[in-house]
Amino acid sequence: MTDPLHGLLTTDPVVATSGVALFADALRDQAVPVADAGWRPPLPGTEAALARVMGDPRRTEANATAVARMTAAEAVLVDVAPAADVVGLERGTFLHAGPPVDWERASGPMRGALIGAVLLEGLADGPEDAERRLAAGDFTLEPCHHRGGVGPMAGVVSPSMWLYVLRDDVHGNTSWCSLNEGLGKVLRYGAYGPEVIDRLRWMSGVLGPVLQQAVRSTGPVDIRAIVAQMLQMGDEGHNRNRAGSLMLLRELLPGMITAHASSADVAEAVRFAGANEHFFLNLGMPACKLATLAAEGIPGSTVVTTMARNGTDFGIRVSGTGERWFTGPANTPDGLFLGDFGPDDANPDIGDSAITETGGIGGFAMAAAPAIVRFVGGDVPFALAATKRMYEVTVGEHPAYQVPVLGFRGTPVGIDTALVCRTGELPQINTGMAGRVAGTGQVGAGLVTPPAECFTAAVEALAAAVPSRS
Amino acid sequence: MTDPLHGLLTTDPVVATSGVALFADALRDQAVPVADAGWRPPLPGTEAALARVMGDPRRTEANATAVARMTAAEAVLVDVAPAADVVGLERGTFLHAGPPVDWERASGPMRGALIGAVLLEGLADGPEDAERRLAAGDFTLEPCHHRGGVGPMAGVVSPSMWLYVLRDDVHGNTSWCSLNEGLGKVLRYGAYGPEVIDRLRWMSGVLGPVLQQAVRSTGPVDIRAIVAQMLQMGDEGHNRNRAGSLMLLRELLPGMITAHASSADVAEAVRFAGANEHFFLNLGMPACKLATLAAEGIPGSTVVTTMARNGTDFGIRVSGTGERWFTGPANTPDGLFLGDFGPDDANPDIGDSAITETGGIGGFAMAAAPAIVRFVGGDVPFALAATKRMYEVTVGEHPAYQVPVLGFRGTPVGIDTALVCRTGELPQINTGMAGRVAGTGQVGAGLVTPPAECFTAAVEALAAAVPSRS
Repeated sequence: MTDPLHGLLTTDPVVATSGVALFADALRDQAVPVADAGWRPPLPGTEAALARVMGDPRRTEANATAVARMTAAEAVLVDVAPAADVVGLERGTFLHAGPPVDWERASGPMRGALIGAVLLEGLADGPEDAERRLAAGDFTLEPCHHRGGVGPMAGVVSPSMWLYVLRDDVHGNTSWCSLNEGLGKVLRYGAYGPEVIDRLRWMSGVLGPVLQQAVRSTGPVDIRAIVAQMLQMGDEGHNRNRAGSLMLLRELLPGMITAHASSADVAEAVRFAGANEHFFLNLGMPACKLATLAAEGIPGSTVVTTMARNGTDFGIRVSGTGERWFTGPANTPDGLFLGDFGPDDANPDIGDSAITETGGIGGFAMAAAPAIVRFVGGDVPFALAATKRMYEVTVGEHPAYQVPVLGFRGTPVGIDTALVCRTGELPQINTGMAGRVAGTGQVGAGLVTPPAECFTAAVEALAAAVPSRS
Repeated sequence: MTDPLHGLLTTDPVVATSGVALFADALRDQAVPVADAGWRPPLPGTEAALARVMGDPRRTEANATAVARMTAAEAVLVDVAPAADVVGLERGTFLHAGPPVDWERASGPMRGALIGAVLLEGLADGPEDAERRLAAGDFTLEPCHHRGGVGPMAGVVSPSMWLYVLRDDVHGNTSWCSLNEGLGKVLRYGAYGPEVIDRLRWMSGVLGPVLQQAVRSTGPVDIRAIVAQMLQMGDEGHNRNRAGSLMLLRELLPGMITAHASSADVAEAVRFAGANEHFFLNLGMPACKLATLAAEGIPGSTVVTTMARNGTDFGIRVSGTGERWFTGPANTPDGLFLGDFGPDDANPDIGDSAITETGGIGGFAMAAAPAIVRFVGGDVPFALAATKRMYEVTVGEHPAYQVPVLGFRGTPVGIDTALVCRTGELPQINTGMAGRVAGTGQVGAGLVTPPAECFTAAVEALAAAVPSRS
């Protein structure tokens, strides 16, 4: 066997540098080869827990299993039906995005969406009455994630709202998501005016039933295949869903047009679906939820299985620590604003849509969607760099979700809590921005990261769960 | 005013190099700043003509006008109708791709397509009789371009075939293209078996009329807007048309489904249109033809207005020299093959589809469509480099057709015959490959360039047309 030190004497030396660039630049100016190590210190205070977690002999295999399950998960649209039927949602219970939150701590857009949902269900006489009853604790609030589903932005779901139902037969899981309302003044952005409630009534009365007939007549739709394709077509699946929406439309339109409904209703449903570039988001989200569901509960795994925000708190859950939430105050996105809105109008980060990043698309696939910078801000080099940075904090590369411009490299998938703490590199999320004040609606779209607290708390809990060596 | 030589004494010197990299590399190894001029000699024998053409005082403004017209041209789908009606095509006349060619010099796929068209029109008793009559000169052959339209691959059009009709109201031009048959054994790739003829009959009898009703009921479709969007969605508009086809489908599907036809016919038309990823090619081509039509006939302009191949010859036409063709032997594409086919099965370059590159998309927009390398060969860096190279031989950048990954830079548009001769950089085309033997069909797809002869002959003619200085 060759002496491992042999190379020291037979090859040219290379200087390795880390930290500030001054030293490396000075050497490069003298034509000296330099390798930059790119080392950074871990998140403050995590050293002890990190040492224990990264030394856990179960971790490597547990994380490999988590990512293998995430990337093997199917996602097939099998039905469209009311929440009362799909999740047995009880009258008076309202689901919402993110980790648990009560009325008192709820943000403006979350309160607005809850008020709207109470009105939709006919449980109050006007907005003031709805607000009073919500504040009095007359209703039950529960995260969508606790019922196996996801909701974009406020993510409020009430029994009469219709849901997409998706199946993963590989792991025997079901997930769901609400139907997309379009942009602007919509419930999920906290608007609850009459036009919002009327649209929701129409969605329950017309759009839902037409979509149900389309799915039931044309048969199951492979959502995972559409996600794979859309990444080859300039979408990243969170804030850019143009190609995905068109592909979904191609599948559903023939069945929608032949649905049993008045021709005016069919025409309006087709127009509504065709005009919405984010129509597919509500399918991509539960597809990613099915992926992360498959990776839950693996002892020793440090892979993140949920990232979700309720507009007040950002929460994550990790495979090795099961159902437990690790939360911190949600950051406010930095991005582009609609019309006259500005940074002061923006609510902190909200929605279950960060499930896309958790599943390896969205902000993690921005290199596939350079045109998204026109919507969320940043520039094209940032979009390319965002995906590349995420490889540093993920366990694997998605075999089906590929980025053409990176030579068809798989998207970074399986966020490793330990690597996030070790490098301080926080997951890159791109997102819509809701107005801070209840009733406003959307004010823009932008870029955001989770608060580091989520990850430092999770790594402490993971450390505590590492079995003592006997 | 500052002495222009002042900088020589006050700034650091930079070595400029050209040609082989040995000298530049040696300097870089010594940390000496080097600027590579990337100079190459002109195409052999063009020096005298080039000097005259590049010294033509009309050239700069004439080329600016040509590109301004090309990029201002509209392209609106206004109708679908039989060739007999659209171009008054006479029974016994057959249009074809590329510059003029007779039966004797026609390649295998061109012969195969002509045989099929003769059979479709009922002008022969079987393939042998069709071939005999074609060889005897019983029919008239004429380029599509001479009638203001374009046809992909063999591009054969006969009176009963249906055409898309596009309008440019800015310049008062009309163009057209045949309907796409799908891939594999199809007429445009030289196949003429019974299934090919049956499909063409169905296209004339069912698909054409259903599309006509759709276009007439939903109103004109802005094809230029779809081209602009598809470049943001991973298509380059020549061999990748996935997003374009989906967007076209979204426009036409509602009108197709409500067309007056049997429900079986409508269902089959919808299935056929939805299953074809190249459905949009036949709209993008006449859109580019309208752009180049607007740039024709500008005295002193060296901008290419046509690149087209008939399977034997590659021909170009230039704005400043009008209708005249400059031809050379067509090269054979280098690429990827279907099934068991290989390089020996490929016919030389064929089709009017190089109108896409002439109009600033296709091979010129490959940076927008990195996934195309899975279809035409090459790798992702090649796709990015191809677009960048084309800026060296074009007059402008398209304001509406942009490449997100290049920071939304406009595609290179307006090929300058003089710059091609000056640099030897030939236009990059990507293309389908037809089987050499009549009746085979498609054998693959690949990358190709025009023969340099087209450009050297054109620059000679342009030089001869430069007015003598009095």
